[in-house]
Amino acid sequence: MSILNGVIKRESPIPLYYQLKEIILSELTSNRLVSGDYLPTENELMAYYQISRATVRQAMSELVNEGYLSRQKGKGTFVSKPKITQQSINRVETYQEKMRKIGKNAGTKVVYCDIIMPSATICQALSLSKQHKVIRLVRIRLVDEEPIVVAETYMPYNVCSFVLEHDLESESLYAILSENEKTRIVTAKRTIEAVLASESAAKMLEITEGDALQVIKTIALNKENIVIEYTTAKYRGDRNLFIVETQVEV
Amino acid sequence: MSILNGVIKRESPIPLYYQLKEIILSELTSNRLVSGDYLPTENELMAYYQISRATVRQAMSELVNEGYLSRQKGKGTFVSKPKITQQSINRVETYQEKMRKIGKNAGTKVVYCDIIMPSATICQALSLSKQHKVIRLVRIRLVDEEPIVVAETYMPYNVCSFVLEHDLESESLYAILSENEKTRIVTAKRTIEAVLASESAAKMLEITEGDALQVIKTIALNKENIVIEYTTAKYRGDRNLFIVETQVEV
Repeated sequence: MSILNGVIKRESPIPLYYQLKEIILSELTSNRLVSGDYLPTENELMAYYQISRATVRQAMSELVNEGYLSRQKGKGTFVSKPKITQQSINRVETYQEKMRKIGKNAGTKVVYCDIIMPSATICQALSLSKQHKVIRLVRIRLVDEEPIVVAETYMPYNVCSFVLEHDLESESLYAILSENEKTRIVTAKRTIEAVLASESAAKMLEITEGDALQVIKTIALNKENIVIEYTTAKYRGDRNLFIVETQVEV
Repeated sequence: MSILNGVIKRESPIPLYYQLKEIILSELTSNRLVSGDYLPTENELMAYYQISRATVRQAMSELVNEGYLSRQKGKGTFVSKPKITQQSINRVETYQEKMRKIGKNAGTKVVYCDIIMPSATICQALSLSKQHKVIRLVRIRLVDEEPIVVAETYMPYNVCSFVLEHDLESESLYAILSENEKTRIVTAKRTIEAVLASESAAKMLEITEGDALQVIKTIALNKENIVIEYTTAKYRGDRNLFIVETQVEV
């Protein structure tokens, strides 16, 4: 067992579990504990700090919920991989470009690429009537072979059919769309929300149903304000952190 | 039972659960089902659409995970309240201002407002050494009496002590900080991530441990680039949706 640095102060008004949590966090901050390292067991922590099992559990489960630690059945609790820090959620860039900037080796797996009749939700997002066909493109994005996001994209078939002639595992969709003035994206509306992973999303992302997901929805328009793309991207909460560029208006 | 509009097409390549999900979503989009309405029971949906329990459950649990529906033990599944759509996550504004813009009645409850010795994480965020005291301010923000976010703010005591003389339930922290040129916020760094609610956060937000949370961390600086505020805000995933203003750079 690697003993943790830091002591618990019983006379402090700060709850014991919170002190233990801070001790572990400071081991992470200082890199004394790094990705993949196992933590001492519950019993070891109880004995070493003379605290109850409930206290140890509360500290550990908060750190698991917040993504710092991961549990593996029968093996214990270990330090999670650092989240992939994505720059500038407010910039609409190609995925390859984003990953290149942070020095990551990115890959794309196309799960579906077909022509379908749109559902009501998709019609509404694309401002399209029900009779129009749409292209459905579902892609899993990988970083170092690990799935980090599944993106479900819908585009009006009538203007975007040429996209289907391209290899969407190696080419950038935005680069393809910009070949044609009519489909070139110039503005986008984007929302972000936190949800729990459904069974199907969990399967594609190799996580567990009920894990945290960051859902980013983008409606992208051409210069005539016609919707060209509607994408729902589900990012693994445990692997992604987004930076928001801010403006102060106090 | 209110029968749903829409039919399931067995000959379609789209999975049955997904068709049912889309039927329910289109009832929500068209406002035929609104916040608080109960859905037909599992048995009713199975009988009406001639589909299996597993199919109904998959559709319903995806809609629950995504925040559209909520379950109440012994009572069934009903339509969730619409999420509070917060404009411009990339703007650093006062909370009151944000809520006023969307016509919401906002309230603030101060949980802690005290002076503490900072933990390693807080020292790092505030670029402060361990010997400096900090102000800890934990506030629950309410909308129409319902908690929607808990914000944990830390400020260096030496420059911000005057904040403690104010009523932080009625006054805006950013307005108070801007009274003094040394503490006026002019820039901020912000990150956003999705996590699961810990027991303590769940309790304050009146949700269940393991529910989805949107965590927004802000490090705010004065005009000399000195950190004045470090805040971790935990937003209920089921009640908040953020709009991101975007710039296209394809």
